[in-house]
Amino acid sequence: MVKAAIVGATGIVGQQFLVALKNHPWIEITALAASERSAGRSYKEAISDARSGALRWFCQEPPAEEVMTMPVQNAAEMDISALDIVFSAVESDQAKILEPKFAREKAVISTASAFRYDEDVPILIPGINSEHTKLINVQRKARGWRGFITPIPNCTTTGLAITLKPIYESFGVNAVIMTSLQALSGAGRSPGVIGLDILDNVIPFIVGEEEKVQQETQKILGSFAGNTVNPARFNVSCTCTRVNVREGHTESVFVSTQKTCAVDEITRVLREYNGLVGGAELPSAPRHMIIVHEDPFRPQPRLDRDAEDGMATVVGRIRKDNVLENGIKYLLVSHNTKMGAAKGAVLVAELLIRDGYIS
Amino acid sequence: MVKAAIVGATGIVGQQFLVALKNHPWIEITALAASERSAGRSYKEAISDARSGALRWFCQEPPAEEVMTMPVQNAAEMDISALDIVFSAVESDQAKILEPKFAREKAVISTASAFRYDEDVPILIPGINSEHTKLINVQRKARGWRGFITPIPNCTTTGLAITLKPIYESFGVNAVIMTSLQALSGAGRSPGVIGLDILDNVIPFIVGEEEKVQQETQKILGSFAGNTVNPARFNVSCTCTRVNVREGHTESVFVSTQKTCAVDEITRVLREYNGLVGGAELPSAPRHMIIVHEDPFRPQPRLDRDAEDGMATVVGRIRKDNVLENGIKYLLVSHNTKMGAAKGAVLVAELLIRDGYIS
Amino acid sequence: MVKAAIVGATGIVGQQFLVALKNHPWIEITALAASERSAGRSYKEAISDARSGALRWFCQEPPAEEVMTMPVQNAAEMDISALDIVFSAVESDQAKILEPKFAREKAVISTASAFRYDEDVPILIPGINSEHTKLINVQRKARGWRGFITPIPNCTTTGLAITLKPIYESFGVNAVIMTSLQALSGAGRSPGVIGLDILDNVIPFIVGEEEKVQQETQKILGSFAGNTVNPARFNVSCTCTRVNVREGHTESVFVSTQKTCAVDEITRVLREYNGLVGGAELPSAPRHMIIVHEDPFRPQPRLDRDAEDGMATVVGRIRKDNVLENGIKYLLVSHNTKMGAAKGAVLVAELLIRDGYIS
Amino acid sequence: MVKAAIVGATGIVGQQFLVALKNHPWIEITALAASERSAGRSYKEAISDARSGALRWFCQEPPAEEVMTMPVQNAAEMDISALDIVFSAVESDQAKILEPKFAREKAVISTASAFRYDEDVPILIPGINSEHTKLINVQRKARGWRGFITPIPNCTTTGLAITLKPIYESFGVNAVIMTSLQALSGAGRSPGVIGLDILDNVIPFIVGEEEKVQQETQKILGSFAGNTVNPARFNVSCTCTRVNVREGHTESVFVSTQKTCAVDEITRVLREYNGLVGGAELPSAPRHMIIVHEDPFRPQPRLDRDAEDGMATVVGRIRKDNVLENGIKYLLVSHNTKMGAAKGAVLVAELLIRDGYIS
Repeated sequence: MVKAAIVGATGIVGQQFLVALKNHPWIEITALAASERSAGRSYKEAISDARSGALRWFCQEPPAEEVMTMPVQNAAEMDISALDIVFSAVESDQAKILEPKFAREKAVISTASAFRYDEDVPILIPGINSEHTKLINVQRKARGWRGFITPIPNCTTTGLAITLKPIYESFGVNAVIMTSLQALSGAGRSPGVIGLDILDNVIPFIVGEEEKVQQETQKILGSFAGNTVNPARFNVSCTCTRVNVREGHTESVFVSTQKTCAVDEITRVLREYNGLVGGAELPSAPRHMIIVHEDPFRPQPRLDRDAEDGMATVVGRIRKDNVLENGIKYLLVSHNTKMGAAKGAVLVAELLIRDGYIS
Repeated sequence: MVKAAIVGATGIVGQQFLVALKNHPWIEITALAASERSAGRSYKEAISDARSGALRWFCQEPPAEEVMTMPVQNAAEMDISALDIVFSAVESDQAKILEPKFAREKAVISTASAFRYDEDVPILIPGINSEHTKLINVQRKARGWRGFITPIPNCTTTGLAITLKPIYESFGVNAVIMTSLQALSGAGRSPGVIGLDILDNVIPFIVGEEEKVQQETQKILGSFAGNTVNPARFNVSCTCTRVNVREGHTESVFVSTQKTCAVDEITRVLREYNGLVGGAELPSAPRHMIIVHEDPFRPQPRLDRDAEDGMATVVGRIRKDNVLENGIKYLLVSHNTKMGAAKGAVLVAELLIRDGYIS
Repeated sequence: MVKAAIVGATGIVGQQFLVALKNHPWIEITALAASERSAGRSYKEAISDARSGALRWFCQEPPAEEVMTMPVQNAAEMDISALDIVFSAVESDQAKILEPKFAREKAVISTASAFRYDEDVPILIPGINSEHTKLINVQRKARGWRGFITPIPNCTTTGLAITLKPIYESFGVNAVIMTSLQALSGAGRSPGVIGLDILDNVIPFIVGEEEKVQQETQKILGSFAGNTVNPARFNVSCTCTRVNVREGHTESVFVSTQKTCAVDEITRVLREYNGLVGGAELPSAPRHMIIVHEDPFRPQPRLDRDAEDGMATVVGRIRKDNVLENGIKYLLVSHNTKMGAAKGAVLVAELLIRDGYIS
Repeated sequence: MVKAAIVGATGIVGQQFLVALKNHPWIEITALAASERSAGRSYKEAISDARSGALRWFCQEPPAEEVMTMPVQNAAEMDISALDIVFSAVESDQAKILEPKFAREKAVISTASAFRYDEDVPILIPGINSEHTKLINVQRKARGWRGFITPIPNCTTTGLAITLKPIYESFGVNAVIMTSLQALSGAGRSPGVIGLDILDNVIPFIVGEEEKVQQETQKILGSFAGNTVNPARFNVSCTCTRVNVREGHTESVFVSTQKTCAVDEITRVLREYNGLVGGAELPSAPRHMIIVHEDPFRPQPRLDRDAEDGMATVVGRIRKDNVLENGIKYLLVSHNTKMGAAKGAVLVAELLIRDGYIS
């Protein structure tokens, strides 16, 4: 079994890692770390409310029993010697400090954005840009690390990049315009979105989100060129909003392709896409990366976010667009805290284990 | 006082007309009509639940006391001889039958889509295309009517057309891409959107909506040419969704303009636009047709829908877009049941009264 | 395998039966019936929207593939000769007509209220009043039927009766006061609760609900006395409201007991209660009928409704009440469309099969 | 004009005070105070987000223009010499320190609970226990203050005490059982209730709330006895929950009265109650303190919270209860941030001005 630590284990993303790794066939959690405040307590104590004793556990599925009694270490002083992977679920400012420390020796798979935009750091979505794993050795060499850092994308990028990939491969992409209707869980709980603000409302702005999606999509669909990734050459323009949905980002996408393409061709390449062929043995991988609905009332976040246990991207309403050159438009739903966060990071770990980057 | 009937008075749009006309300085309601089932009862009886006696009144503001005791007539047999205006709040299939009957003699201002796309029928937004009123005489002549039909646009078109108008005038428009996040009230109550379907959810499709917005925007921004309106020559491509918001449509807009334009220029022309200058005496007109926020967290439907009593369109997040030629992007909030429905129709009536089409 | 028909198969409760019986080890669905309108079509056709082709399937879990191609019969003319059970998911007025027809020959297990209050009809909750099955033979004899009708309770009664049972057994009950905060799914979809009405709101009235809960609770906790059930002798007083929750009824309960009892005694009898001991072999039975939380922020409908796949009743905040004689108070959450509807009816079927009433 | 300061002016309750006092005919705001962090800045700067410049203004109605440029003082060092009233909108721990300082010289009207339970401190609801103002002179004498502290009740107590008052007067009260369905705004914004927690959910616990309601109701309905208030002798037992409603607490109330009383008698005494007769000249007083609906679907928080600009308590579903001795039951809706908070405190100020306690 590969030995893993969760850093930021008490937060919502950390908790999602605990769920994503429950009964994992290849990976076992052998260490938990959080801020100094939690250090020295059992995990159960660390997530218990001091006043009421209530458990501050936020996932629908409960954690494994044995996790509850594991001690929580101070992330800044965690002993990593016996570990194979560090899953990092901390905020970006913490990630900047902690992740390089761990990466000197170990594989760090991160949900934070701190290193996403560094030249020698791949943003991995298994099955979409698996070949970017080759950047890992470039990174190791450049930084003199035995380990490495591989962040996953922002959760809003994930579904967009996944659905653009088969279109990009088959028809080329000139440009992308996207409006997102994002779920509350993407904002976390510190304090995230206040109930008063989102009830009967839409929040039209998510700080920093649009820039991330625009830049990350180009990098993910870029081509590996020896020792760097050349970003894909199309522009992405986004408006990101928050709606009163618990989980599951909805995105309204307009794409200009290079070659003309009919709606049924787009439907076919999306439906048939399987970047994980040959990799179906990855335990967290969906059987279908992309599911396409004919029903015009789909995808809906509540009905479709859990498809393939939240690891599939669900697409619908594929139509011609009459504004863009070779324009098509569609909607997608992607589970922002499964494929778009912890479970997506676990899938990255599986890919890296299979391909020998972690052992 | 101008004498008006509300047809479809017991429905939700009809009720909004009653509110929009409460204490109106120029217009008095002298007749109410609905389906045969309500005919012969007082308005209060007609909107009372048979079993529980509960009033089926759906607006926040109560109706005028005197309306409650008015008799409801059968719309199909309503005596229109003493009327000046018929406000039509019926469904499109009913409108097709009823509105021409009334229009033979009287002015019909309608929220239904039945006649919007006829060549000799203007879709009016006062202050945006007031000159399209000239089509009324063309219509009268062509159809041999003493009256006429003037529909207002679909509620999703309204805010888009209003915000495009100053941009179109100053910079020209090549193309528009829009994703809407629409409120529940736009779907009405028969049964409209079921609570189970929209809680924790987004509905990605609204039947017929996108086609309406695309076609109506071109017509509204078109130019009057003697006896017809030549549609504006830019394409509009929409994706219309429903979100869990009670009132106020949010729209994410991407525009390609003909001339280059800076964000502050766009901001200025939107802010300064006042197609109603010289018409501020219209009682329902907003002081500002368009309000522009600098705060990136605005507009929000709950905070901004009631600006100028729901008659202003509120804009924010004006930015450059890097995908479209001379691209800009912004969000807007428009009150779909005030400016976008009954009160917008009352504003049309005021314009037509002022300009001598109704007397 | 026991052969079952679902009557009212296209409605929301009928769909829940299809889910509850998917891969059932004892029961197979061999017939589907609905109104005349659906008759003659495949199930898939019958639940497809004529205009858009969209599937009108409302459960989170999909139906079994083979169900989709089954023909739908006209319920009024269904051939029941080859059946063992009829699960009835129709409205009460239809149930009045259809259920006696089926019951002449077959076991009818119903979610409708039509026969609940008849003297010779038990309202069954397995594990709570399993001995009331004895009323079945009284009913058969009285009505000259080979079959019988056994309705399940109203979904709001279910959790209340389950939690009162161990208290009643151990301490006696003088009186019960209950305020419910009920989920939208209990109102169904025809049209159920309209989104506009429940957003940012509470509906303080549910027609007929309070009377049902008051009467049914007494009957369920009553004692079988040879050829009738003597209702329990305590009064129940309810106020039933609707809140913006999808699934899971929350109930705030105040109980006056006959003997004094401490909070930890109540906690213990609730936690240890297992009316299904000896019956754990019933496939749909929960391992724990009642789960008690110490965390004062529990139970919550979203977190607790799915406990034991929606078959457990979850209790919290057990405290002394200072108003009632020997007063205690607590909150409960019960899944209104699992234990409280179709899956609860399937559990009744399992009990009746085990005990030889159906074969 | 009476000169008032708002302490805690930047918080949500402070902002509600600014709205409640906008254009007030008797009271002008002459000072604003908040924590040291805001001190020295204009009010507009103090509520502006440092990063985005967005205004953190949370009320539906905008503040007065002139307030925006007023300087914010450090509450701990505020110069109160020129003031007549201090409205305190701080948290209870701050209130404990600040309010006695101000009260040495000035009238302090507080929304905090810090002093509510002190023997010489009245909890005032004008029109319900106006005579408790007499406790002010007891307090002044006991504490050697020229000023005094008068808190308003917890927002959940307000509607309950108001509706119990006429029942108590006419029929006597033995006991009260109440379950509340409280709005999000009662939890404030620091961070209040997180959107993720309340969407599709009910929170069954509000820390400290039930004890407050139980104790405050007895004190408010108690009788002034020379130099103290003797609490009313009936017990109140509550369960307080949070639901996904923005404003307006709903309460399900069960009352045992001393004398028997019919539903129509209760209806009459509630409807006719006007403790403010002779005091209608108070500018913020509602014309009707209590509004009673016959429609069983009322009261609803969204439809009824704004009755009389949020100053009326709206009652419905008055019925006999068959559990309590002389039992009746009803539901009420009370606006928790108008009558239940800032505007209720302004009404107290008006009463104290009229009766000569403030000048």
